[in-house]
Amino acid sequence: MMHLPRSLRSASLVFTVLAAALAARADDGMWLLNNPPLPQLKERYGFEPSAAWLEHVQKASVRFNNGGSASFASADGLIVTNHHVAADAIYKLSTKERDLLKQGYLARTREEELKCVDLELNVLMSIEDVTARVNAGVRPDMSAAEALAARNAARAAIEKESLEATGLRSDVVTLYQGAQYHLYRYKVYTDVRLVWAPEEQAAFFGGDPDNFGYPRFNLDVTLMRAYENGQPAKVEHFLKWNPAGTREGDLVFLTGHPGSTQRLITLAELEYARDVQAPSALRWLKSREVLLNSYAKGAPENARRAQDELRGIENSRKVWDGRIAGLLDPTLLAEKQAEEQALKQFASDRPDLDAADAWDRIAAAQQVIAQNAVRNAFLESYQFNSDLFSVARRLVRAAAERGKPNGDRLTEYRDSGRTSFELALFSEKPIYPDLEQLKLQHFLTIMAMELGVNDPVVQAALGGKSPSVRAAELVHGTTVADVAVRRALYAQTPEQIAQSDDAMVQFARAIDEAARGVRRVMEQQAEVKAQAHARIAKVRYAKDGDRVSPDATFTLRLSYGAVKGVEAGGQKIPAYTVLGGKFERAAERAFTPPYDIPASWTAAKDRLDLSVPYNFISTNYSIGGNSGSPTINRDAEFIGIIFDGNIHTLVWNYAYTETEARSVSVDVRGILEAMRKVYGADALIDELLGKQ
Amino acid sequence: MMHLPRSLRSASLVFTVLAAALAARADDGMWLLNNPPLPQLKERYGFEPSAAWLEHVQKASVRFNNGGSASFASADGLIVTNHHVAADAIYKLSTKERDLLKQGYLARTREEELKCVDLELNVLMSIEDVTARVNAGVRPDMSAAEALAARNAARAAIEKESLEATGLRSDVVTLYQGAQYHLYRYKVYTDVRLVWAPEEQAAFFGGDPDNFGYPRFNLDVTLMRAYENGQPAKVEHFLKWNPAGTREGDLVFLTGHPGSTQRLITLAELEYARDVQAPSALRWLKSREVLLNSYAKGAPENARRAQDELRGIENSRKVWDGRIAGLLDPTLLAEKQAEEQALKQFASDRPDLDAADAWDRIAAAQQVIAQNAVRNAFLESYQFNSDLFSVARRLVRAAAERGKPNGDRLTEYRDSGRTSFELALFSEKPIYPDLEQLKLQHFLTIMAMELGVNDPVVQAALGGKSPSVRAAELVHGTTVADVAVRRALYAQTPEQIAQSDDAMVQFARAIDEAARGVRRVMEQQAEVKAQAHARIAKVRYAKDGDRVSPDATFTLRLSYGAVKGVEAGGQKIPAYTVLGGKFERAAERAFTPPYDIPASWTAAKDRLDLSVPYNFISTNYSIGGNSGSPTINRDAEFIGIIFDGNIHTLVWNYAYTETEARSVSVDVRGILEAMRKVYGADALIDELLGKQ
Repeated sequence: MMHLPRSLRSASLVFTVLAAALAARADDGMWLLNNPPLPQLKERYGFEPSAAWLEHVQKASVRFNNGGSASFASADGLIVTNHHVAADAIYKLSTKERDLLKQGYLARTREEELKCVDLELNVLMSIEDVTARVNAGVRPDMSAAEALAARNAARAAIEKESLEATGLRSDVVTLYQGAQYHLYRYKVYTDVRLVWAPEEQAAFFGGDPDNFGYPRFNLDVTLMRAYENGQPAKVEHFLKWNPAGTREGDLVFLTGHPGSTQRLITLAELEYARDVQAPSALRWLKSREVLLNSYAKGAPENARRAQDELRGIENSRKVWDGRIAGLLDPTLLAEKQAEEQALKQFASDRPDLDAADAWDRIAAAQQVIAQNAVRNAFLESYQFNSDLFSVARRLVRAAAERGKPNGDRLTEYRDSGRTSFELALFSEKPIYPDLEQLKLQHFLTIMAMELGVNDPVVQAALGGKSPSVRAAELVHGTTVADVAVRRALYAQTPEQIAQSDDAMVQFARAIDEAARGVRRVMEQQAEVKAQAHARIAKVRYAKDGDRVSPDATFTLRLSYGAVKGVEAGGQKIPAYTVLGGKFERAAERAFTPPYDIPASWTAAKDRLDLSVPYNFISTNYSIGGNSGSPTINRDAEFIGIIFDGNIHTLVWNYAYTETEARSVSVDVRGILEAMRKVYGADALIDELLGKQ
Repeated sequence: MMHLPRSLRSASLVFTVLAAALAARADDGMWLLNNPPLPQLKERYGFEPSAAWLEHVQKASVRFNNGGSASFASADGLIVTNHHVAADAIYKLSTKERDLLKQGYLARTREEELKCVDLELNVLMSIEDVTARVNAGVRPDMSAAEALAARNAARAAIEKESLEATGLRSDVVTLYQGAQYHLYRYKVYTDVRLVWAPEEQAAFFGGDPDNFGYPRFNLDVTLMRAYENGQPAKVEHFLKWNPAGTREGDLVFLTGHPGSTQRLITLAELEYARDVQAPSALRWLKSREVLLNSYAKGAPENARRAQDELRGIENSRKVWDGRIAGLLDPTLLAEKQAEEQALKQFASDRPDLDAADAWDRIAAAQQVIAQNAVRNAFLESYQFNSDLFSVARRLVRAAAERGKPNGDRLTEYRDSGRTSFELALFSEKPIYPDLEQLKLQHFLTIMAMELGVNDPVVQAALGGKSPSVRAAELVHGTTVADVAVRRALYAQTPEQIAQSDDAMVQFARAIDEAARGVRRVMEQQAEVKAQAHARIAKVRYAKDGDRVSPDATFTLRLSYGAVKGVEAGGQKIPAYTVLGGKFERAAERAFTPPYDIPASWTAAKDRLDLSVPYNFISTNYSIGGNSGSPTINRDAEFIGIIFDGNIHTLVWNYAYTETEARSVSVDVRGILEAMRKVYGADALIDELLGKQ
């Protein structure tokens, strides 16, 4: 599954990449909806989408703000996404007694649709270029800190103004790494209800070993419904389902929200990914995987509590294993080196572009980032691997930031983000003290090993105690698990917060200055890089023109490709699998988990047409965050839903190739056959097929 | 389970620890059989073992040279050890069609006893102090390299001379970290056969989550038999089984082979363990655990192939998690600091001991070790995580070392070790190319991340290719999986080996100079430390007398203690569990693995007396390598077998406490009840109880 890592599940992200004017080859590209690849589509597939086509697919596409994609599937706000995208919400609706992830769920009536705890959906309504205004306050003689402040102030002002004027969520998105800034306005849904989910074992058959593999046999699908004012939302744009599906060779599109790519970073940045980022990410992920796996095995209820996070970790670990494999492949670096050499040559021949030193500036900034990256991760990004800490920090910072001008605040505390911020802060999602304590103890231990036990911040974090004693004291000494307590603290001033006797709140306060400090360093260096990247972008444009899509930023993109089998390792793998293949694969593995078949499927086997297409692959460019994107045909009809890429797509973060790499979708035909014959969801099928 | 880590499963080890003359408190100590704790036993338990008692338990104790302990249980060479100690041998006897770990095994007749592939057992016959001779060639003006060479030459000569004179395996053992050297002579058995093993699920009920926990319900027992000249070995000394077992408070002993402790290292060495050793060990273990766990889930046969190694990794990971918890507990370091301060003060008051600078010398050496430790692990100790590489390296080095004087060789290539060396080299243990390739690719990836991709040795190892391409090329380009090929190469000269077209042999050659280089640095620094430790030992002796046992060295030790319940976390945990508790614990966890009950036990449940004692705890000091040690009473009768310690014993590596820490044994009564009613092993019971 290609779920977006948690660290990227926020709308206001700064990415360290830049789109370059590399010639677009093959089915490459994650295209902006306001700048679609019309020449390529016409040339390669003889297809010319109309403006209405583009507007329709844009407004029928849905972003899961916690890290995935989806689409509207009926006029009554029915939404289809992946099970693994919905899993976070399903997990939060589950209890020891009612494990919806394990058992699945079907609302027989609208009354039975279950309201999610803290899910926010976004639908893109408009895009506006605001580059000039974002850059207006930045002068060449400014320091990085000054430039960053000026840019942040401009962005905050634009977002706030837009929100107040339209009522729509308004995000300024950095594109081409600072070459362009666009204002994205979204309609927001926060009343979202669970309609139908299969058992996780049907959705994620084959588990971790099959993840990022193909052939696959997964019903990675869940239906939800958007509500407004307590009623199903009425939507104008939704994608009709075409039960006829596709044939090999058909042109298909994805409209979704790829999270992040690093296609056009410099060699220095690529080496940083290889030498610092990937190793530290893998250390962190593997240590957590071992921890949670061991905890989960201790009791069935432990397994349930850890499951959602463990799945995410396993997935990210496989992503990073794939990335480091690419980064250690000498061909990737050689290609980057050759491309960079050509750009540098061009820049040195064109002093008017003023970009000759841009690569050196980035390399210098990257060195500072490398020195601070692990520290930033442990003090800032990882949130001490604790929900309670994360809540406490947000309370502490909200009080502090509230007193500052909107444009001076940390990004996530700006006025324009308040709805999302409060939805998450006041979430009633379950928090399990045993797991919190285990994770915090583990975090403090790993932090001591990574930063060194003599680091003053580590000493402050441990407070002269062992990690286990300290973790117990913090988890048992806080009441912020109670949402009413959060609301009360959220209303307090910094001075009042300082008087709190909540141990976790005081802990967050004690760490805050150091955490803000390292974050500031990272953000200032990102600004240095952004300015240099903007110059490189001009070089690319001058050299190659505008034939490349910007790197992914968890904003809506269109990608195109064809349904197409693949030859890998001397083996020809057909484009489609069929329902019967699932039973065969399970039998070959003695039905041992993760290859067991849910009881509902075993019972329905005789009724199923086992020859119905189940999953299929296509050449569309996709990446984490695209999960749940509708796979659509020329008529903008839903013919599948993407849920994964094969193992060769993991290098797509750095380079696109369609030799062996394929995106993987669930076929509309398999979805309908299973919904009808395994789950008896006939009323929903009628709604999906417009037969109501 | 307290299995000895693989890296310690060799008889000729250099340990970096020194016994100090700390006052022995409580049931502390792993005592030499030639220097038993007579005063403590008399004082604390009113017990005075006779010389005959000591000789008897010594010669009835058996060392599993692959990392565990055992005891003779009948005059016909029957041996009892832990299932997890025998697991390595059982794994090597298993195939896809006959998974003896999963299914268990019972030889109904002696003809059905299964000969192990490469198991070596040792029985200690005599101990001789050779300190003077080992030190004779070392002069104060020598460099570390010269001193090491002189010491190695003396040790090699002593061992070779003894082997030739007695025919017994002869190892010079370093005690009190260089204060004493003793010559241990062993009778060796290499024809060892599997007699009875329960299903792994009976032996390791509760798996990783229950490991190092208590209460426990594990039949961690296996029977083997030593053979000589094709017949069951006739042994004079074996331990009678007493089916009456013990009562709480009883004095009990362990006679076994604890692998390694670091009780008496200096503060600098303790900080190294905290800052370098534990973090790097945990990174390596967790990465391998994730790799093998993911592989194992891919298919039942994968799980079988990976199982033995995966169990060992999970166990070691829990050990190191426990150790780092201890190392990050400020009290441990404070105690070490206080103790060291007192010793330093004593040394400075007694210039005649010439030890004032010993701690600084150790700290300086430890710095060099810290700088080289990870490199040494990746180039030398970890053996590229590949059986094929390990074979290839031994072939390359055997050819090179053969031409040197015996005393100049790398330790494991000395004449005295040839039997063990060749047993391992020519082992017919299964090697699975798919797993080898996966592990080697993983190793090359991790090595690149740990040492840096630009390290010349990493570059040489990768050969300009990606880890996956390189691993495939090496695994497919070697034929040393074939033992006949190994024998042929073993007969070759270095010049002939240099001409080999075997890819793995050439790889081992290409890495060898760098690997030997870093090993040399480590060994020379160990010699520097040994000389300083010998001086500190004199200070300890002068200050506190001779009241402390030497740190463990995987040689025979006696520990004493009492059967005793424990209070932990406010809960009183009784000393004994009963058979029925296993069924209760399983039911509480819905019989979900690792809490499932084997079919044999479910079928036998009604016949079993569920009130029979199953596992029990005692205050005996033990550590990895002690697994399988007989737990015996005052009459030297077998009343249990140790298989684990609770979680609080993990810090026993650095400090002994009996407040919450306990060793865990299987009770003789539970063993006999299960053997009779679950496994129908009546003939074996008759042999064990002397009723034949």
